[in-house]
Amino acid sequence: MTSAHEEAWLRTQLRTIIFGTDTPAGRGFDIALLVLIVASVINMMLISVAAIESRVGPYLNGFEWFLTLAFSAEYAARIYAARRRWAYIVSFYGLIDLLSILPLYIGLALPNAHYFVAVRVLRVMRIFRVFKLVRYANDANIMTRALRHAQRKMQIFLGMLALMVTVLGALMYVVEGPEHGFTSIPRAVYWAIVTITTVGYGDISPSTPLGQTIAGVAIMSGYALLAVTGGIITAELTNEISNQRQNTQCPHCERSGHEIDAAYCKFCGGDLSHDPDEEPADESRQKARDKLD
Amino acid sequence: MTSAHEEAWLRTQLRTIIFGTDTPAGRGFDIALLVLIVASVINMMLISVAAIESRVGPYLNGFEWFLTLAFSAEYAARIYAARRRWAYIVSFYGLIDLLSILPLYIGLALPNAHYFVAVRVLRVMRIFRVFKLVRYANDANIMTRALRHAQRKMQIFLGMLALMVTVLGALMYVVEGPEHGFTSIPRAVYWAIVTITTVGYGDISPSTPLGQTIAGVAIMSGYALLAVTGGIITAELTNEISNQRQNTQCPHCERSGHEIDAAYCKFCGGDLSHDPDEEPADESRQKARDKLD
Amino acid sequence: MTSAHEEAWLRTQLRTIIFGTDTPAGRGFDIALLVLIVASVINMMLISVAAIESRVGPYLNGFEWFLTLAFSAEYAARIYAARRRWAYIVSFYGLIDLLSILPLYIGLALPNAHYFVAVRVLRVMRIFRVFKLVRYANDANIMTRALRHAQRKMQIFLGMLALMVTVLGALMYVVEGPEHGFTSIPRAVYWAIVTITTVGYGDISPSTPLGQTIAGVAIMSGYALLAVTGGIITAELTNEISNQRQNTQCPHCERSGHEIDAAYCKFCGGDLSHDPDEEPADESRQKARDKLD
Amino acid sequence: MTSAHEEAWLRTQLRTIIFGTDTPAGRGFDIALLVLIVASVINMMLISVAAIESRVGPYLNGFEWFLTLAFSAEYAARIYAARRRWAYIVSFYGLIDLLSILPLYIGLALPNAHYFVAVRVLRVMRIFRVFKLVRYANDANIMTRALRHAQRKMQIFLGMLALMVTVLGALMYVVEGPEHGFTSIPRAVYWAIVTITTVGYGDISPSTPLGQTIAGVAIMSGYALLAVTGGIITAELTNEISNQRQNTQCPHCERSGHEIDAAYCKFCGGDLSHDPDEEPADESRQKARDKLD
Repeated sequence: MTSAHEEAWLRTQLRTIIFGTDTPAGRGFDIALLVLIVASVINMMLISVAAIESRVGPYLNGFEWFLTLAFSAEYAARIYAARRRWAYIVSFYGLIDLLSILPLYIGLALPNAHYFVAVRVLRVMRIFRVFKLVRYANDANIMTRALRHAQRKMQIFLGMLALMVTVLGALMYVVEGPEHGFTSIPRAVYWAIVTITTVGYGDISPSTPLGQTIAGVAIMSGYALLAVTGGIITAELTNEISNQRQNTQCPHCERSGHEIDAAYCKFCGGDLSHDPDEEPADESRQKARDKLD
Repeated sequence: MTSAHEEAWLRTQLRTIIFGTDTPAGRGFDIALLVLIVASVINMMLISVAAIESRVGPYLNGFEWFLTLAFSAEYAARIYAARRRWAYIVSFYGLIDLLSILPLYIGLALPNAHYFVAVRVLRVMRIFRVFKLVRYANDANIMTRALRHAQRKMQIFLGMLALMVTVLGALMYVVEGPEHGFTSIPRAVYWAIVTITTVGYGDISPSTPLGQTIAGVAIMSGYALLAVTGGIITAELTNEISNQRQNTQCPHCERSGHEIDAAYCKFCGGDLSHDPDEEPADESRQKARDKLD
Repeated sequence: MTSAHEEAWLRTQLRTIIFGTDTPAGRGFDIALLVLIVASVINMMLISVAAIESRVGPYLNGFEWFLTLAFSAEYAARIYAARRRWAYIVSFYGLIDLLSILPLYIGLALPNAHYFVAVRVLRVMRIFRVFKLVRYANDANIMTRALRHAQRKMQIFLGMLALMVTVLGALMYVVEGPEHGFTSIPRAVYWAIVTITTVGYGDISPSTPLGQTIAGVAIMSGYALLAVTGGIITAELTNEISNQRQNTQCPHCERSGHEIDAAYCKFCGGDLSHDPDEEPADESRQKARDKLD
Repeated sequence: MTSAHEEAWLRTQLRTIIFGTDTPAGRGFDIALLVLIVASVINMMLISVAAIESRVGPYLNGFEWFLTLAFSAEYAARIYAARRRWAYIVSFYGLIDLLSILPLYIGLALPNAHYFVAVRVLRVMRIFRVFKLVRYANDANIMTRALRHAQRKMQIFLGMLALMVTVLGALMYVVEGPEHGFTSIPRAVYWAIVTITTVGYGDISPSTPLGQTIAGVAIMSGYALLAVTGGIITAELTNEISNQRQNTQCPHCERSGHEIDAAYCKFCGGDLSHDPDEEPADESRQKARDKLD
């Protein structure tokens, strides 16, 4: 009925709406989806509250079905419109899109089965829809770029933490022992994590004088060490940003001191992207997205 | 009796005393009000302590009445003296001023309505008098301006937190379940907030090995992520302030490096506010205040 | 026997040893005093442990008497040697020196009296000897100077905290009420302090859904607000230090970029203190100390 | 059989593999060792879990023996290949290497000595194998160098913390007393550490109104003081790094602004290490390592 040409035109149109954010229709679609995702998270929360579920459960479950159908239609449309279908299906967001609609269908196929706990796990994975919000945040702020840049610093911080809690946990397992709640090294490491990060539930806490002394010294040392490490990371980031800014020179008026995420010179309005020192981050990202579609 | 001219003179005088801070009378009025506000907050606290209320309750309540009458007189005087009355009444401070005197009158109107919670709410609403103190903080420091400037950064930080606690809460609801205190997703999210911010009451805490493992990994990752995010925000603020300072040039002697809140050149004493790059913050604020009066 | 001249000579000698830190004897005296103060704190700690006191109590108490006599002798010598005796006696350190020896004597005068609780308070004020350690830290590091410089920022931070915990405490007192542990506003403010600073004992924690929602929102907002405020303070300090450094120019070789606490140019070794922009902090402090002696 | 010349050649080869990281064989050895260390830590954790040990204990203990033999062989090879044997044996890494294999042999020598705690200590001492990982961290990142540089700042931070918790602990011991859990000053200091670092277990917490007031004030003051101190440390580190960078000038092209850990000029590629202002850190470290081998 429709010629191949017309179908190609339809797919391109759909792709512009669903994957794009540049046209009014594309933006409208994204905003509508955002609203649905937030509604879905709130709905799931309400269902989980026994007092609410017992009163208006049917309405909430009906809405849940509406949301699942809407997300299913969106998933189908994405597969239909994507430039490279398998690339989309096995991509991070493709899998999350699938995971967010599966649980309800599985719960339908096995209604009386006693696998309800497993299904419950699947159902709440729908929370991953929240991650879809990140897609918008990604485009909007430079925070993500800065975080990606500081990734290695974060790994060093995490590595230091991991080393500290492993040694401290093993030490406290020896000193306090199973009779005071430190029943195994993993549990003692859990205590050490809760302690060193200053969460401090108090479900496990040292009770022997020696254990309290070691814990006291470890807490203070860890606190000072992490505060100074945080300071070093901040200091390095500050100088990197400052350095980047001083090095970025407008190729037109040759003045420097531009914001990291500036695209145009704030003095003469010239395009900064021709500067050879500036990484063309947006271009490479655009390419990566083109590949996906 | 008094001519319109005399009344206008009286209102101007009152306005200088009540709204102004430049004359000795104006400063004296502000200090007296400050003392009354602090006294009022302390008085309310003492009334709430049963052991104190049972012994000296009548005196405290008498003082409360004195304070309410004083604040009522102040409110009436402000309306009388204000240049634009409705603008004052519906302004932030106007509403706070009203809220801080209403409760006692309402309690008087409904003397036998012993709706316990409602009365308690009314009585404690007077705590909003504390916000009257903001009036002074606002004028005194550049902190508020810096905070308003960093508002978007704070929103990103809050958004990241909100995303993290939602996902973590839903995950732990599935893993731990109602039998270990995670009775609903909202409650699990409450646990996640208390955990990720390192408050850690311990009223709810994971008790299964899997839950403790997930909590441990989430706490450590969240801790490192938030520490680095804090570092990024600090680094950006540092460079923004430094940038602002380097860009602010005295229009008279052309030297730069002035403090953000400096009004006059620290080298030649010239007025910095004619600089085209500097946002004339004080002027616009002055205008906003003029509108209020 | 000794002429007035000889006595003046003796006092000057003693003053150099006790108050000074420039001669070998003065430094030796200070180090010996430091050891005694630390020993005194450890001794007091050991006496407070019942298991240790019951076994070696007499030895510890004997050592306590030795320490008290030594500190008494030091106090007498300080009064004798001080240039202006009353100035020393009523000074901060003079009062701490007195407070650190009084308790044992008072315990002697009222041995069987039932005021033992009050005496216990006095006894532990001996811990103030620890503050004497600050005297040495004062001279050694620039931290104290930086802290004094940042005092106003800390007050703003504290003020913000105080405002937040007062309003949050009053709010939770209304929402949770006495039946859930929030028995009075002061107690609710105590909870708010423990919560907003992320200590989170868990001795009081919200148990109603509304209370948990408010607490959750307040914790997250407070956490983000304090993180950003901390970032602003750090950013301002960074720029102040950097500014100070850029403005400090060697009057001899005219190069800048010296450390804040540098006394000599790191390029040509010239005396930096003649620079008109540099506050002669050490001189004014020396004067303040001369007044005390 | 083998001539001295051949043995020297073998030792040099082994040294290249075991101590070096520049050849493929050396890198392969390091990676294999890394895997074994991590496996060893996980294995020890699993053994400590009763539920796992009772089921697959023999397998885990067998693997433990395999690991111990592998580490023993590595230790022997290191001694054999090291350039200066005793220097290696008494070095930090030499002792860690020994400590990580000793426990199992000691447990073998005293098979019937069922001194419960002693055996547990010996078994868990193997956790020190984690420190073997530090070897890699040390070489890989500039964090360690920065931390060594900021050591004095960390000591000041720790000293401030120690002073605060001692005074606060003693004060609360007097105010709350043994009847509310503050049974001795050391225990009260433990409480103060847990509180000031915002861990807040809640195993001990003030219960008298006066104690809660003092705790509240101390928590808020301590929180503000530590936040500002952390800010000062960060600010100083930022300016030190920035200063170091501005002062480092390429001796070839004379341009500055290089990263702290840069070895070559980023503008002309010239060797920066001839700069007289730059501490030749890598050289001195290389020398220290040469001494070890």
